[in-house]
Amino acid sequence: MNPVIMRIEAHDVRFPTSRTLDGSDAMNPNPDYSAAYCVLHTSDDRLCGHGLAFTIGRGTEIVVAAIEAIAPTVTGLTLDEIEGDLAGFWRRIVGDSQLRWLGPEKGVVHLAAAAIVNAVWDLLARRAGKPLWRYLADMTPAEIVAAIDFRHISDALDPGRARELLEARQPDKAARITRLLAEGHPAYTTSAGWLGYSDDKIEALAQDALADGWRALKMKVGRDMDDDVRRCRTLRRVLGNDALLMIDANQVWEVDEAIKWMQALAPFDPYWIEEPLSPDDILGHARVRQAVAPIRVATGEHCHNRVMFKQFLQADAIDVVQIDACRLGGVNEVLAVLLLAAQFGKPVCPHAGGVGLCEYVQHLSFFDAAAVAPDSEGRMIEHAGHLHEHFVDPIRIRAGRYLAPERPGFSVEMKRDSVVRYRFADGEAWRRASA
Amino acid sequence: MNPVIMRIEAHDVRFPTSRTLDGSDAMNPNPDYSAAYCVLHTSDDRLCGHGLAFTIGRGTEIVVAAIEAIAPTVTGLTLDEIEGDLAGFWRRIVGDSQLRWLGPEKGVVHLAAAAIVNAVWDLLARRAGKPLWRYLADMTPAEIVAAIDFRHISDALDPGRARELLEARQPDKAARITRLLAEGHPAYTTSAGWLGYSDDKIEALAQDALADGWRALKMKVGRDMDDDVRRCRTLRRVLGNDALLMIDANQVWEVDEAIKWMQALAPFDPYWIEEPLSPDDILGHARVRQAVAPIRVATGEHCHNRVMFKQFLQADAIDVVQIDACRLGGVNEVLAVLLLAAQFGKPVCPHAGGVGLCEYVQHLSFFDAAAVAPDSEGRMIEHAGHLHEHFVDPIRIRAGRYLAPERPGFSVEMKRDSVVRYRFADGEAWRRASA
Repeated sequence: MNPVIMRIEAHDVRFPTSRTLDGSDAMNPNPDYSAAYCVLHTSDDRLCGHGLAFTIGRGTEIVVAAIEAIAPTVTGLTLDEIEGDLAGFWRRIVGDSQLRWLGPEKGVVHLAAAAIVNAVWDLLARRAGKPLWRYLADMTPAEIVAAIDFRHISDALDPGRARELLEARQPDKAARITRLLAEGHPAYTTSAGWLGYSDDKIEALAQDALADGWRALKMKVGRDMDDDVRRCRTLRRVLGNDALLMIDANQVWEVDEAIKWMQALAPFDPYWIEEPLSPDDILGHARVRQAVAPIRVATGEHCHNRVMFKQFLQADAIDVVQIDACRLGGVNEVLAVLLLAAQFGKPVCPHAGGVGLCEYVQHLSFFDAAAVAPDSEGRMIEHAGHLHEHFVDPIRIRAGRYLAPERPGFSVEMKRDSVVRYRFADGEAWRRASA
Repeated sequence: MNPVIMRIEAHDVRFPTSRTLDGSDAMNPNPDYSAAYCVLHTSDDRLCGHGLAFTIGRGTEIVVAAIEAIAPTVTGLTLDEIEGDLAGFWRRIVGDSQLRWLGPEKGVVHLAAAAIVNAVWDLLARRAGKPLWRYLADMTPAEIVAAIDFRHISDALDPGRARELLEARQPDKAARITRLLAEGHPAYTTSAGWLGYSDDKIEALAQDALADGWRALKMKVGRDMDDDVRRCRTLRRVLGNDALLMIDANQVWEVDEAIKWMQALAPFDPYWIEEPLSPDDILGHARVRQAVAPIRVATGEHCHNRVMFKQFLQADAIDVVQIDACRLGGVNEVLAVLLLAAQFGKPVCPHAGGVGLCEYVQHLSFFDAAAVAPDSEGRMIEHAGHLHEHFVDPIRIRAGRYLAPERPGFSVEMKRDSVVRYRFADGEAWRRASA
């Protein structure tokens, strides 16, 4: 069975989360968690691929327009053609020279490429009858290497070295998979600490999280230092000394300001400070990291491609690599960054939350744990508790851990009813809102 | 007179340049020079503002969609409000949190922001009855500083230091302006050296350029080393030893490859190597620069914001700062980068060519020469000879120099007839093409 990709259907789907301030932070006061969602139809009626780029409201229609602009590059291809040259396929998607000008390999066109690329991997995994992480884990090191575009990163990681890193994990891959299936994957939760929540709400949510088995929580900071000190004190009191407290500034500080602010929050023993600066500021992060050690520095949800991650690692600017499944150009580029992280000995803790990101990144972390990462030290998947009900194959959490995805594919297929109801602006949820 | 911005009209305008391989290079084999072009209508019928984002064909419609998404942020503002808080105005345009997610400050949303921001500066200069460069040069240092968003760059340049740099130029500003009006501004031409041209065509065009008074020419390289050696030898023979030969690889090399390739081309004494690597690879450029000195390293046409330029300068990774008028977020962000370049002592040689870029950047370089740059050492404006006929106030070149723009505004107003004729896909030029 070698289906042809026939056409791409793209939708602007928005959830009105700004009404409850779920997801509010210092940079994004009122997001409407949204997705530019695409469905790849094939010549086999039973086989569709699903992908999305996560957005936060206005402008989702721009990403949909970009998906439609890229679509002709992928329609007409067979799955065998794609599987036979995965890096070539990816270069074709991100390399259309006229569209590339609009990035290159960043912003709207890269988000749209990610949605399509991920939908294609969804197709490949579904055809193989495997959840994506198992599909990847079952590929040989040579096959994984052949899926990666090493352009612009070969000074840090070349195909030979990438293969060595993967070969080194082969002997205990089966045992790792067995353990992942039995125990799931470590995680932390962001659901308790949105900036728009009251102190009482944060305290109550943190207590609930502990009762549910979470041992790592993240809180948003960066709007007001006194507020942050007070909230960190509250959370540390609730969490006790053993649970991890991560904090996230969502890019609002200058270099010196970040260092000063972290001095004020250091007494509460934060595990990491996330996005202290502009996501483009590699050298700034290196300065902050030196100043705030031993507090870790984390960034990546807005790190737009492998070239940027390469430099964050080369400059020793971060401790935690926070890949995003659809900010990077989909699975192929994620593979490059997982291997870069392994090469530089840094753990990958993917960005999640939003809509569909938890569903996506669980596959990336399970694969990383099975076949790439040298050990489990410091590796966690982000979790947020909202909007999973819109997915056909939602995440499953037990006692602060993700359970291994079991159904074929990449898990971001939305329920048809949700797409129709939340489509902007003609879905019922938005017609009511404007009425 | 304090007009209100009433509405924004946006067009997808494309010129079929791929038919003649004008503009062909190693990364962009067949561009159709295009623009997402916008017109800001005000409450004064006689006053419209014109801006554009340069694109190269497919995907221009995506930038138009982004202009339409940003439009509500600017409509309803009066010119006095904007002029009274220029940095606040810019932050409003690039800071809509939902749209910001799609960059941030990069890619399609930043291109669209640039088109609108530049159209607003066009309005301000027209209202003042001055060409934009004079409008800027007549602003006080305090007013220029108040137009700049220093977020994410204050570790390299703060408002106080920016003001000092500008104050230092004040005593001879009038003399500089007089000289610019009399002598124009130095330039170099790219028109001779497109990659798709034959050796004979390149040689003939270079001879023509010399005859026209040019003393600096740029050639595209990077597809085949033997071809590049042969073409460099030809050009150096035609140019003699005094004229400058710049070469441009348009991002196609890896770090080690760039160094090796430049060893092969060094005998032809290139003045600079432009875009040797991915435009995001700051640390890679630093390595190339060390290895190829005294050949200069230039980049910037794809450098997407002030944070990236800050790091290129902090890392001592470039010798030449090649700002783009609409890759950066318009005039406000260009001002930040002109001052960063002055702070680090590097000349600014703007990227031009394409469509409308020469018209744009002449204003930026004349202002830089009048009020920012410490001296004229190494400062040139790029020139390419095509598509100027579509503008109401096209550039004027004499003996290899730009003459000072004289008419009010920012010079990117397109002739109405050109917009109609080349509008994609309903303009006559495209209806014929598809027929």
